[in-house]
Formats: sequence, C-alpha cells, structure tokens
Amino acid sequence: MERIPAQEVKGHIGERVRVAGWLHSFRQLGGLNFLVIRDGWGLVQAVAEHEEEIAPLIEGKLSVESVIAVEGLVVSEIQAPGGAELHDLSLEVITPIEEAPPIPLNKRKIAANIGTLLDQAVVMNRHPVRRAIFRMAAAMMESFRSTLTARGFTEIQTPKIVAAATESGANAFRLDYFGRPAYLAQSPQFYKQIMVGVFERVFEVGPAFRAEPHDTTRHLNEYVSLDAEMGFIENHFTIMALLRDVIANVLNAFNEHYSNELTLLRVQMPAVPAQIPHIHFAEAQELILKLHGVDARGEPDLSPQDERWLGEWAQQEFASDFLYVTGYPMRKRPFYTYPDPARPEYSNSFDLIFRGTELVTGGQRLHRYQDYVAVLEKEQLPLEPFASYLEAFKYGMPPHGGFAIGSERLLMQLIGAPNVRLTTTFPRDLHRLTP
Amino acid sequence: MERIPAQEVKGHIGERVRVAGWLHSFRQLGGLNFLVIRDGWGLVQAVAEHEEEIAPLIEGKLSVESVIAVEGLVVSEIQAPGGAELHDLSLEVITPIEEAPPIPLNKRKIAANIGTLLDQAVVMNRHPVRRAIFRMAAAMMESFRSTLTARGFTEIQTPKIVAAATESGANAFRLDYFGRPAYLAQSPQFYKQIMVGVFERVFEVGPAFRAEPHDTTRHLNEYVSLDAEMGFIENHFTIMALLRDVIANVLNAFNEHYSNELTLLRVQMPAVPAQIPHIHFAEAQELILKLHGVDARGEPDLSPQDERWLGEWAQQEFASDFLYVTGYPMRKRPFYTYPDPARPEYSNSFDLIFRGTELVTGGQRLHRYQDYVAVLEKEQLPLEPFASYLEAFKYGMPPHGGFAIGSERLLMQLIGAPNVRLTTTFPRDLHRLTP
Repeated sequence: MERIPAQEVKGHIGERVRVAGWLHSFRQLGGLNFLVIRDGWGLVQAVAEHEEEIAPLIEGKLSVESVIAVEGLVVSEIQAPGGAELHDLSLEVITPIEEAPPIPLNKRKIAANIGTLLDQAVVMNRHPVRRAIFRMAAAMMESFRSTLTARGFTEIQTPKIVAAATESGANAFRLDYFGRPAYLAQSPQFYKQIMVGVFERVFEVGPAFRAEPHDTTRHLNEYVSLDAEMGFIENHFTIMALLRDVIANVLNAFNEHYSNELTLLRVQMPAVPAQIPHIHFAEAQELILKLHGVDARGEPDLSPQDERWLGEWAQQEFASDFLYVTGYPMRKRPFYTYPDPARPEYSNSFDLIFRGTELVTGGQRLHRYQDYVAVLEKEQLPLEPFASYLEAFKYGMPPHGGFAIGSERLLMQLIGAPNVRLTTTFPRDLHRLTP
Repeated sequence: MERIPAQEVKGHIGERVRVAGWLHSFRQLGGLNFLVIRDGWGLVQAVAEHEEEIAPLIEGKLSVESVIAVEGLVVSEIQAPGGAELHDLSLEVITPIEEAPPIPLNKRKIAANIGTLLDQAVVMNRHPVRRAIFRMAAAMMESFRSTLTARGFTEIQTPKIVAAATESGANAFRLDYFGRPAYLAQSPQFYKQIMVGVFERVFEVGPAFRAEPHDTTRHLNEYVSLDAEMGFIENHFTIMALLRDVIANVLNAFNEHYSNELTLLRVQMPAVPAQIPHIHFAEAQELILKLHGVDARGEPDLSPQDERWLGEWAQQEFASDFLYVTGYPMRKRPFYTYPDPARPEYSNSFDLIFRGTELVTGGQRLHRYQDYVAVLEKEQLPLEPFASYLEAFKYGMPPHGGFAIGSERLLMQLIGAPNVRLTTTFPRDLHRLTP
C-alpha cells in the first residue's frame, strides 16, 4: 500500500491507509497503546487495542525516533491531532532505535537551555517547534523570491570568495586562495549593483559572512542575506515602497498558509499598513527631545533607546508596528550612499524600525562614476581595490538603490524569538562551529 | 509619463510611450538616426528623422551605454526588434557616458576571447548573449525549486563554514575561525542528510567550494550546487525518477518561456524520455568490450571515452540524449554510499550521462548507525570529526538518497557552451579571483 502524508489522513475516514515516519511518542493508558507518528509534514495518532498489533515495537523494546510504517483504519477522533486517528494497526519497523534522544522531542516545550539545544541541533531540529520555525524560514524565502520575480527582478548568484573586503576589512574572514589572500563576502553589495547594469532589477538569496567578534542575541557570523537592488528609481522612497510590499507578502504568506505554526509559536502577527509611516532622522531627534527630554541632536545615529521610543510613537500615532526613519547622516552610512540633494549632510537612506528595533537597512546609491571617484578620494580610500566595481559606473548606471535583509534576524523579530540562533538550523557564532 | 518595459512597446501601436535604458547602439543611415535602447528585459528601436529630436545625444557627443529615456510614437515595423519602433522622439539623458566600452556590447558575436570577456565581465555581462545565459540560469533555479516544492520538499540553508572537510580535506579551502581551523563547505551532503531526519525531503541552492587546482573547461572553485535529498525511498531508482522530472521540468521551462534565448544561443534542445534508459556499470563494461573491443572490466570507474561510447549507444538504441549508469563500484564512491544488497561490491548509486558526458551524480546513502560505524572503521577514518553527523543516524533515519547538480555545469551542457566559466556571472578558478 502507498503511504500517505500524516496531514492527509483525515481525508480518508473509513479507509485503511499507510503512514510512515518517526515514532514521536508512545504511551500506554487504560489498556490502550497510543502511538504518535511524525512524518516530514505533520503528526498522526495511532491507537492499538491489543499489544499484538504493535508487537515488533513491544518485543524489540524500541524507543521513540524508531522509523516505522503503520497501516490502520482511519477513524474520526476530535481529540487526535488533525481530527482523525488510526485503529486496527499493522506495524512495520523500518529502522529500530533502542535509545531515546537525550532531550525529549515530544514535549511541547523544549526542556533545554539554548546552548544545549543548539549543541543537539542535529536531533533537536526534529522538534515540532523547531520545524515550525524552519518551515516559516522557507516560506519567507519563497515569498521574497516570488514578490520580486513578479516585479521583473532576476535572481542572481554572486561569488562568496572575493579579492577585497566590501565593508570593513577588519570584519572579513580571510582565506588563502591558491596562494593569494582572499575574503569571504560580507555582502553582495558591489555585485548586485553591478548586476543592476545588466538586468535593472536583481535579487539574491545567499550566505554572507561577518568576522565580527560580537556575542549578542542578534548577531550571527554567517547568515542568509535577502538582497534586492533596483534601477531607475526616483529615490529611496521607491525602495521603501518595494520593501513594504516584500514584508507584507511574507506576513500574508504566514497568515494564509502557516496558521498552525503561528499558533504553536504563539506569534502575535503584525499588520503592515498600506503605507508605512516615515520620519526624517532630524525630525526624529527633535521628537525625542520634545517627548522624552533627551537631546541627541548632533548624534550621527539613533541609539537602541531612541529606536524604542520611535517604535512607541509609531504605535501611538499611527497604530503601526512599522516605521521608516529616513535621511540618516552621511557620515554614518557607507561610501556608496547617495546624499540628499537638498541637504547633502543627510542621505537618501532609511532604516525600517519594527516594534522599536531596526529590521532592515537600505537606500539609494551613488550612480555616477565621478561621484565614486570623489568620495573615495575624500575618504582617502585607494581606488585600486574598487577598480572592477567602478567599471560598472564608468559605462553607465541609472539611479538605483536597494536593501539587505538578514533573514534569520527578520524571522526572529517577526515571530518574537528571543535569540537569532533559534531561527537558524546550525548557527555559526563566536563560539559555535559545530554541528 | 510612466515608462514601460521594452518588450511591451509592441502592445501600444499608435500611442506615445516612454522607455528607458542604456543606449545599446546608435547609427546614422540614409539621413535617419537609429537608436536601440536596451532595458533590463529587452531591446527597442527608436528612429529620429531629425537630429533635433535627439539633440542631447548629438550635442553631448554621447556614447553607447549612456543611460537615457526616450518618448515616442509606437509604429509597427516588421524589421525592428519586437516588430515595433518609436518615432517622433523626445530624449532625456539620465547618465551621460562619453567613452564606449572596450569590447562592443551591440555586436551579435562577442569580439573577445574568453579570458578578456571574463576580465571585462562587469560590463560584458550586459551583452544580450550573456544576459540570455543568466536568465536561463535563474529559470533553472526557479524550476528546480518549484518542482521540488510541489513534491513536498522543504528548502533549507545550511552553513558554509564548517569544522571538518566533507569530502577530502586536501580539496577544502581553509580559514581561521576566531582562532580555530575551519573549512568552506565542499557540499551540503552531511547537512542535507541530517535534515532528512527533520523534513524527509529537503533541497538547497547554495554555493559549494572546492580547492581543487584543476584548470579545465569543466571546473570552477566556487559553484552553485542544486542539492536534493529524500527519505523513505525504495532505492536509488526513486531518486533517478525524481531527477528525471527535475531535468524535464527545467527543459520545459526553457522551451515554454525562453525561446528567444534558445534561438539567440542556437541551442539544440534535448528531449527527456518519460523513462530515462539505464544500464548497470558491469553491463556497460561488457557492452563496451563487445562494441569497441576495449576491455575495461575490473576498472572501478568509466573513462571519458567510455561515457562517450555509452552516450552514442543510448542515442542509437533508445534515441535518448540521456542515460543512467547505475551500480558504480563501492570503492570509487564516498563512504556514505549504500551498497547493492545483492552484489555488495557494487553500489546503489548512479551517474546521469548526457550526450556522452556525466551530468549529475546521486544515489542511496547508508541510513543505519551501525553501518556508518562499520564503514568508518573499515576505511580507517576517525569517528570524532563525524560525531554530530552520526547523531542523526543514532536517533533514527529512513532509507534515503539524493543528488547534487553543479548548476553552472548543467547549464553549460544543456546549452552547449564550450566552457563552464561562460555560464557564471563572475567565475572563480585557479587564476581568477576578480572581478
């Protein structure tokens, strides 16, 4: 008999079906034997009245996580996961397991601290809570791609071994490339801009590497970056409108197809306004002075406290979990940032603040060759490491801009996870290189 | 006026429209001025009867690759790209360029050898032939993902910085990870198997890194690997059927949506049989002896000549461009390969041969913990570097298998490109680390 996935069992009431998966739990209660089988997509309960039905399990003294196949009659049962369960069983052992995992996979709450959980990730990633997170991560990528593809963006793959550090050399992992020094890409920034010269609109989903010795709940040393870059924009507001739609579509995908996961993870899903409210950096500092008496005018960046206050303000003023802060001072933004033509000390850039914390950074980039030459001279940076990047501008680039989303951090914030490591299958941090 | 993409111009005959992009070519002929504008998606021709219509171009002595916007009346013209062109123009210069790229982008054939072409990739990737290749690369990824997603596969992202080399330590790039030795992942093999324990069916699109000092037309040191892995299989034939559908869907996507690209690249598209013919490794050697008098029996692998002969045979016998060779000897396959239960010196593995060259490798993997322990002991490999990988098997894994496709190489072979570097935006090889 062909097996069916766990979540399809309830569609076969009155029929005999075969399911296969891992023995998720096994309890004996009131003379009955309750098995829960976990397959790649869900859980299904099977009940044996007689131990003979599940003899291989009993006789082999097999443990949870044994891989089994079970045939049985589908019976409606409101208490069972999915509203149906199997009776009158016949059981086959595919891979017998005699020793249970050190941390149970069948308790609703994971009974381990985060360090232990991550040390045991190879097996703990099987936990329904972990699976829900990773399924939502996959859905997020899928939504990111489909939103951009529908708008004429082309997916690109750019090299992760590069000759020069993109952002700051100090924070790049170095390696030996056949006798030459090389770095792991900190972002696809230069390549995605170059590819705007090819396709106008490009996106990439790929790893980015930062050798920052940070040990916080928000930093990973390897993460998956969702990058988009777009030509022929008006200014950074074009990018902000695009990003709004990207985020809104991710949330729609979660709401439409992942309600079980949202329930399991107890997520308070935000709503994205049709237009996310925005405030200029300078006005934001004035507002903070007015509302909280803290004078940060002249500071080149917002503090975490500033971001929290602005998040509260957006909530009170616009009932919005989201707020754009625009026009960050040029001196805190990377050299390729486009200045505000009216106030050149400020930039055509933005941060998206979500519930008081920065979620995404983006903006308009310089597009004229002579502007790059001037800014690199001004910042006393050598031209040579940027030579091939500058070729793109030498031969014609339109006004363009984009954004980069740290996918693990975005998911962490959207689902309210306390630590970015929890939204990663096998995180890499200052101390963690395995599993 | 809102701009429209080049390929939509022909739908607006009799209307005035605005297009924007790069000045792809400019010719003066018989008193007329012919402009071709290239945007992110296509080309459109604009014809000025009077030089005044395009005064900024003439007066500025601007070059091709200047970024411009052109408004004009859409007129049907069978000779023009797309069957329509713009008349009665009004032109705006967005980014003026005065110096043309060193290699022309507007000749049908790229007038450069491959080395020069790749040195100039930042600009040469704008060439229509290059764009066609990269668009098909994106379509290939998209088709790979959608085929697998439709069959219940979950997309995963696994770490690229790893503590131990997967395949052979000699061919892994090494780096310093906060004072500890680390490697760049040569493949996601171990992680995708581990994740079969989580989701049964997983796939990944991500970079893989090989420090092999090969300098051939088929090798890259960084490539994009399309990986799939699936649990609860019968044996390697389950995987072969899946791979057949993956390849067939890629080719369908090309045929349905990329006919312009196929024409431009002069591709002879293959057809995939409903069932790809297969031959066992041992029978293949017998066949070669019979047909060509070469006795390779006892050799543990097929030579390139053997693969060409088998390709010819598949063509003659089955009129098929594709052929599976199954059952490669265990001693040439990696330690995690599942042996043929009936003939344990052969394996449950396969190569897919396309037009006489190996295209994809895959097979069934070991799934029992004790089998891993035994094989690592037999091959005198230490257990310790594999400790976390082995946890997956210790706690229950179903029979499983999968395959890995080098995306650049697959595209190279499908479109008949002479060098894998040509299917890569910015290739990394023994000598090439920029651009």
